[in-house]
Amino acid sequence: MEANKLWRFLVLLTGVAMISLVSWLHLPSLSNKEVLNCNLYSGWCISKNRFYSSARPKEIKNPSSSDHQSEIPQHPLDPLTVQEFNRVRTILSSHPLFKSSSSYTLNSVVLEEPDKKLVQKWRKGDPPLPRKASVVAVVKGVSHVLTVDLEISMVVSHETGSSSGYPIMTMEDMVGVLEVPLKSSEFNRSITKRGVNLADLACLPISSGWYGTPVEENRRLIKVQCYSKEGTVNFYMKPIEGVTALVDMDRKEVVAISDDGQNIPVASGANTDYRYSIQKLNGELRLLNPISLEQPQGPSFSVDGHLVKWANWEFHLRPDPRAGTIVSQVKVRDPDTSKLRNVMYKGFTSELFVPYMDPTEGWYFKTYMDAGEYGFGLQAMPLDPLNDCPRNAYYMDGVFASSDGTPYLQPNMICIFESYAGDIAWRHAECPITGLKVTEVRPKVTLVVRMAAAVANYDYIVDWEFQTDGLIRAKVGLSGILMVKGTTYENMDQVPEKDYLYGTLLSENIIGVIHDHYVTYYLDMDVDGSENSFVKVNIKKEETSSGESPRKSYLKAVKEVAKTEKDAQIRLKLYEPSEFHVVNPLKKTRVGNPVGYKLVPGGTAASLLDPEDPPQKRAAFTNNQIWVTPYNKTEQWAGGSFVYQSKGDDTLQVWSNRDRPIENKDIVLWYTIGFHHIPCQEDYPIMPTVSSSFDLKPVNFFERNPILGVPPNLDEDLPVCKAHDSA
Amino acid sequence: MEANKLWRFLVLLTGVAMISLVSWLHLPSLSNKEVLNCNLYSGWCISKNRFYSSARPKEIKNPSSSDHQSEIPQHPLDPLTVQEFNRVRTILSSHPLFKSSSSYTLNSVVLEEPDKKLVQKWRKGDPPLPRKASVVAVVKGVSHVLTVDLEISMVVSHETGSSSGYPIMTMEDMVGVLEVPLKSSEFNRSITKRGVNLADLACLPISSGWYGTPVEENRRLIKVQCYSKEGTVNFYMKPIEGVTALVDMDRKEVVAISDDGQNIPVASGANTDYRYSIQKLNGELRLLNPISLEQPQGPSFSVDGHLVKWANWEFHLRPDPRAGTIVSQVKVRDPDTSKLRNVMYKGFTSELFVPYMDPTEGWYFKTYMDAGEYGFGLQAMPLDPLNDCPRNAYYMDGVFASSDGTPYLQPNMICIFESYAGDIAWRHAECPITGLKVTEVRPKVTLVVRMAAAVANYDYIVDWEFQTDGLIRAKVGLSGILMVKGTTYENMDQVPEKDYLYGTLLSENIIGVIHDHYVTYYLDMDVDGSENSFVKVNIKKEETSSGESPRKSYLKAVKEVAKTEKDAQIRLKLYEPSEFHVVNPLKKTRVGNPVGYKLVPGGTAASLLDPEDPPQKRAAFTNNQIWVTPYNKTEQWAGGSFVYQSKGDDTLQVWSNRDRPIENKDIVLWYTIGFHHIPCQEDYPIMPTVSSSFDLKPVNFFERNPILGVPPNLDEDLPVCKAHDSA
Repeated sequence: MEANKLWRFLVLLTGVAMISLVSWLHLPSLSNKEVLNCNLYSGWCISKNRFYSSARPKEIKNPSSSDHQSEIPQHPLDPLTVQEFNRVRTILSSHPLFKSSSSYTLNSVVLEEPDKKLVQKWRKGDPPLPRKASVVAVVKGVSHVLTVDLEISMVVSHETGSSSGYPIMTMEDMVGVLEVPLKSSEFNRSITKRGVNLADLACLPISSGWYGTPVEENRRLIKVQCYSKEGTVNFYMKPIEGVTALVDMDRKEVVAISDDGQNIPVASGANTDYRYSIQKLNGELRLLNPISLEQPQGPSFSVDGHLVKWANWEFHLRPDPRAGTIVSQVKVRDPDTSKLRNVMYKGFTSELFVPYMDPTEGWYFKTYMDAGEYGFGLQAMPLDPLNDCPRNAYYMDGVFASSDGTPYLQPNMICIFESYAGDIAWRHAECPITGLKVTEVRPKVTLVVRMAAAVANYDYIVDWEFQTDGLIRAKVGLSGILMVKGTTYENMDQVPEKDYLYGTLLSENIIGVIHDHYVTYYLDMDVDGSENSFVKVNIKKEETSSGESPRKSYLKAVKEVAKTEKDAQIRLKLYEPSEFHVVNPLKKTRVGNPVGYKLVPGGTAASLLDPEDPPQKRAAFTNNQIWVTPYNKTEQWAGGSFVYQSKGDDTLQVWSNRDRPIENKDIVLWYTIGFHHIPCQEDYPIMPTVSSSFDLKPVNFFERNPILGVPPNLDEDLPVCKAHDSA
Repeated sequence: MEANKLWRFLVLLTGVAMISLVSWLHLPSLSNKEVLNCNLYSGWCISKNRFYSSARPKEIKNPSSSDHQSEIPQHPLDPLTVQEFNRVRTILSSHPLFKSSSSYTLNSVVLEEPDKKLVQKWRKGDPPLPRKASVVAVVKGVSHVLTVDLEISMVVSHETGSSSGYPIMTMEDMVGVLEVPLKSSEFNRSITKRGVNLADLACLPISSGWYGTPVEENRRLIKVQCYSKEGTVNFYMKPIEGVTALVDMDRKEVVAISDDGQNIPVASGANTDYRYSIQKLNGELRLLNPISLEQPQGPSFSVDGHLVKWANWEFHLRPDPRAGTIVSQVKVRDPDTSKLRNVMYKGFTSELFVPYMDPTEGWYFKTYMDAGEYGFGLQAMPLDPLNDCPRNAYYMDGVFASSDGTPYLQPNMICIFESYAGDIAWRHAECPITGLKVTEVRPKVTLVVRMAAAVANYDYIVDWEFQTDGLIRAKVGLSGILMVKGTTYENMDQVPEKDYLYGTLLSENIIGVIHDHYVTYYLDMDVDGSENSFVKVNIKKEETSSGESPRKSYLKAVKEVAKTEKDAQIRLKLYEPSEFHVVNPLKKTRVGNPVGYKLVPGGTAASLLDPEDPPQKRAAFTNNQIWVTPYNKTEQWAGGSFVYQSKGDDTLQVWSNRDRPIENKDIVLWYTIGFHHIPCQEDYPIMPTVSSSFDLKPVNFFERNPILGVPPNLDEDLPVCKAHDSA
């Protein structure tokens, strides 16, 4: 087995750079089991040149997921197993492309989903569908896409990328470039000139975007900027402003060093360390008695492999290196027929766009696309039990491939839990006007599926929340640490009227730069079947005719079925409102309404950048809030398959502008949540979470309120609890 | 004592009408204590002609609020006590206005707040500020506003209303009109013609709005429409369509009966009863194991009279018959100085506007203004423990005056509880890119103050939520029962193309009529003092000049201080975004930013009605989402002091159009949450809750994240729980 070859990567955190020394050691043979057991190594452990944190952060009992070695797929959409990853490696190792090349990277190895129609037909107990892997590899600077058939142990398809851009970076790409600038004495001089000891350097790999310059052609470029970690774990608050290295990612060479020569002082970093161990020393702030979500009879959900069942819901859940969390075959049980009904075939965060609003030399390129560039799932570190998720949460691991194809474990990457905030699912109280004595109230309990991806400084908390009334809420929380800019200013009274800071002075020598966040969701709705239509229900002012009514006006709902894609390119307008329905035009309720789900936007923001600005062109999927496309297996990533250094030739906007028919078709709905973020001092040195969400809500999907029959909480339902220390 | 005279109002729920017989009985003398003890009477109990539900719905231990008889005010903003209400009655009884009149109603008796400056100066331990009551009375059709000084036992001010409209209806007004139509044989014929037994009638008092017709002049009018309660407690789903009585509220006379002659059938009402007792018979839907918010060491908040303290927050809370919940003197503790800092002097739901979108005879007038017409607080029935609020909630009673001034109890009207949904206050995890091993996460716990007002069919869940990071969220949930329209149609295939239904066919013979909801908040912000300014931080696209940057554009934050009111009349635009700051221009942070709070809108809707349409003119406060006015004690109710039948001459729009200076002044911020509601079958026969909210969020108010020092949850913090039945 390939996995018997194990490489060890030593990371010495001391030395001239944060990642200073790469050492390849040939280790003795280990069983597969040991490959995945990080506890064999201290600190970070590695399969070949791959990092991950040492085992689970705390003891969590998930018996079903404790041993990934023997896992076999139970469902056609289950992710590749450890054994399957290893078979992919074996198959690839004998393929001419990799045999003949001394250096290559596997940028992505994931399940190639079987045909949607086959998956839809498949039932538990049926023979398993043939398993395939989709592999993206970079060989000598060229991107290859291969399909590996695990049944017949063969590469059955092999193409080279046709659009601009490169595949998602590997973790090894990101880490590997960090030491490169240190080979440059020019770079080192720029650092030391600013009073920073090279031993205190912490550097970040910053995707360089694409700006149409000759230097960008035919090579993978990345920018490296550094910080001082002297005195704080929060090095982000100590930027070494004005120094940027442009690095060739494949050759690991410095292309250029940029130094603005301003020698802006590095901020002191005082009081920026946010760790509790440090706060305890400074005097902790204990505001609250313990509070906990308790379920003495245990949670109400079950997880069988990747199949989650809860209340009236059933869905498939899998971790993905690029999307993070993928929910599939989302079905809800109809209380009238007791049958499961399809709602959504697949939903995930397809792409992110995070443009910073500073056009100057050291900042203009910061226009991140976190899923396609960094891997939203790759950056989802283990969740902290009791804090990231409440008690009784179930934790699902990710099993991903490192750049040589070796599988590794991303433990506790997703959690699943029931939430009860004290909210009300429905209620009515009669009042004395009617003289009836009725008060009926039902508490609202939901199921949350959560992932938290920390793409370097920023933390994205990505929730899928299911309500018993049929509503699905997709929610994004932003926390983590700001990307800040060094400045000579220590107080706003030093700033001349004319000087625009591109942000807010947060502390002495620190500016929080204005930026946006966009998270674009892929929502393959299948409302009671695959053939659906998108209907705008426009809410329009109608004037009454003279003498018709004492009223002059009222609002009228006017339905407009989108025939082609351009009919469904939608910018939200408060004063031209619509509801956005995905209906099954052939399936009607008893009284004749087409069954449907509606998209309900929440608070959001729109990108205002010039559509021809290179970053906006690459992120053209943010040009509208809503899009609808016909289902096409290859159109899943809103910024294109190859986003890194892409030119914007393969975006959702490009596909949608083909203006294909979408009426009564298998359609995909796209929605973008946006945030404008003008930083404020409260975001320093670590940000309180800001959230936004949208809902997918049944609209004439059920015959009536589907949770009419649920009981209220009664005294005898609730637990009897004692404080831990008096137990 | 006046209270020794007790009148009893017998409500017989059988007979020719729901409220069929009014009988006045002189009861023997009872002590004050007994006046408020509803358990002496079965069913509904009454002080004079006043209803309320019999005592607390379940046993709740709130020792401090169990005996309202002996209550004395502890804070200048405490509501009038039982003893004070009784003194007001005594004082009024000797006033010429009431002595000389055989018939009058006290439409409102509430605390007259002392001058803001006096309240701000007052400290616990200081001598109490003089207590006054503000009384609104209708005597012979004329509205009077009186101030009663309880110190000197005198009416110290007496004016008659100068604007159009009438005061809030009393509960007696609302109930008293319901039997009036039955005096009309024409009305009774219309009912029986539709096959409804008069014994099954349930009628509603529907505010008639104002449409500029002569019939509306100089009298209080109301419309009465009826339903059949045959076979269901959910009579709302059995409208008797096409019959409306126009009633003179004071004379209790029918002015006109309108019958459209269409004899639209009354819906069957099958499966509309939502009570659990009925559902149990039909087969309940038990989806979930019990789940509960548990605090074995008890909640972390305290309530001393009306002063609530929790974590870093302190505020005054009082029930109000018109607004529902009023929060005052909201202060947050600065972790750096340990000092309480002012955020908001007063916040409450000032008015609601609920226009239905059907201009036909039986519907055009349905344009409710629930606070000023019906009393948002008057309609807030007792909360259901364990379902309206979780365990460990504290319940606050309302003590209000009935129409003769007798105090009565609205038990458990407001609840206060801590909420934890499993959410995250802030987090950061370092990833392998940086090589640091840090994961710090803090759970988010909030304090919720909740009221649920059921204004006949609709239930409004009104929350004030406080976060430890300084954020205040105001949230409105809509549940309850739709106002529906009868129709001959039983299926959409019967509806001709041309026939517009004004809503959605929800069930056979039932249309859910489209409508909007607007809730307008009064927010007297006092950010670190009373002198504040309103600053729009406009986010504008800025084009870079040629050669300046590889970027073509970026977003720039441009501050614009509102000088006068018209600068602050704001309609939200997704593509012309702004942040909305209330700052104290004279108070700066260490690095020189003015301290502030920002208003962060959530999902909302705007009124699209013609501004000259009479309902929109009366509800002109919904013409913008945001307004800012200079503080003026008389400008608190967005639709005017006297909203009932108002003509729109005393609204927020009228005040704001005076365009007074608002820079560096004591200013009041107004925000309206809106909802468009196109009903769907899931809303039938009772609606799952739909919510929206906005936030007041610190923006450079604190020097840094104010909850940096809070500890994470640790295993030993959490309780040990057992199921109730195994306890």
